Amino acid sequence: MSTTVDVPESSNVGKGKAIAVAPPRPGGGLKKGAAIMDFILRLGAVAASLGAAATMGTSDQTLPFFTQFFQFEASYDSFTTFQFFVITMALVAGYLVLSLPFSIVAIIRLHVAGPRLFLITLDTVFLTLATASGASAAAIVYLAHNGNQDANWLAICNQFGDFCAQTSGAVVSSLVAVVILLLLVIMSALALRRR
Amino acid sequence: MSTTVDVPESSNVGKGKAIAVAPPRPGGGLKKGAAIMDFILRLGAVAASLGAAATMGTSDQTLPFFTQFFQFEASYDSFTTFQFFVITMALVAGYLVLSLPFSIVAIIRLHVAGPRLFLITLDTVFLTLATASGASAAAIVYLAHNGNQDANWLAICNQFGDFCAQTSGAVVSSLVAVVILLLLVIMSALALRRR
Repeated sequence: MSTTVDVPESSNVGKGKAIAVAPPRPGGGLKKGAAIMDFILRLGAVAASLGAAATMGTSDQTLPFFTQFFQFEASYDSFTTFQFFVITMALVAGYLVLSLPFSIVAIIRLHVAGPRLFLITLDTVFLTLATASGASAAAIVYLAHNGNQDANWLAICNQFGDFCAQTSGAVVSSLVAVVILLLLVIMSALALRRR
Repeated sequence: MSTTVDVPESSNVGKGKAIAVAPPRPGGGLKKGAAIMDFILRLGAVAASLGAAATMGTSDQTLPFFTQFFQFEASYDSFTTFQFFVITMALVAGYLVLSLPFSIVAIIRLHVAGPRLFLITLDTVFLTLATASGASAAAIVYLAHNGNQDANWLAICNQFGDFCAQTSGAVVSSLVAVVILLLLVIMSALALRRR
């Protein structure tokens, strides 16, 4: 009987974590899967936001002719909103890369709320930032495609087809990043609850 | 001694909640304050989003003269983005009104995670919606104020001063709603953690 008493005691002393891990909580496997999914989604969001920033940042088209009225050149520099887009998307991508270690910590220490709380707070802030830049760029892209009769703004996509295609692609890519960030926030909230 | 034994037992039987409330958890007062603050902030967000929708929805200006080129009338109908803004802000205001009962439940039942989880999920979704409409409207308002040289879009705020002032006010009001929703999400995450 002395051996059966000794064994659990030595294991408790040997690994300090044994106390915390001891009772196998329900839904542990589900939580682990969710934490790993968080990491994978984060990688996807990095790719989407980096792609958005790069695509928008390299958008530049000069037509091979000009008139006396205006020079036929379009680049992301021309639109303040697109400049904002490039900066914001680069910031979001940077944050997401920096958040990867915290996501790994959340996988290893499933039942510690600290990193998850840190991630959900900053995720929400950067979700807002990404949405703001994506939506404002989308508004400008829409104008570039369709123009506006009442304000007498003409569509420029007839001339600048490549420029428009590139900026539209960047907007779509940013909206992918927004959707992933939204999923990340909701998954973090669910994980915080099931603690 | 029989009286002292009877009293806690009868109180346990009398109020079913007594078991749940029994151990006074640390930070209970703080949680209650945060839950009440959530309700008050929600009221503020209702006002801000309703105000934004109403201000944008009533923006309309017709100048007392016209030329053969274009009619000098501007209303939120002229811009698809502003229509989207009105619809979205009305949706956000409607959601926020419907969320008030859940916020009250979260005040009464401090330690039940259900309503709080429901609120944080939908809050995040509507935060994204409000941000998207606010930011895209801001991009158009910026264009209306400053125009864009490269795309040959002229500023229209010289003519439509009142229209521009009203739409700018609506955008500012929507950004107030966005900031409040952001605070609500972060506060909910903190409350979920301290359970």
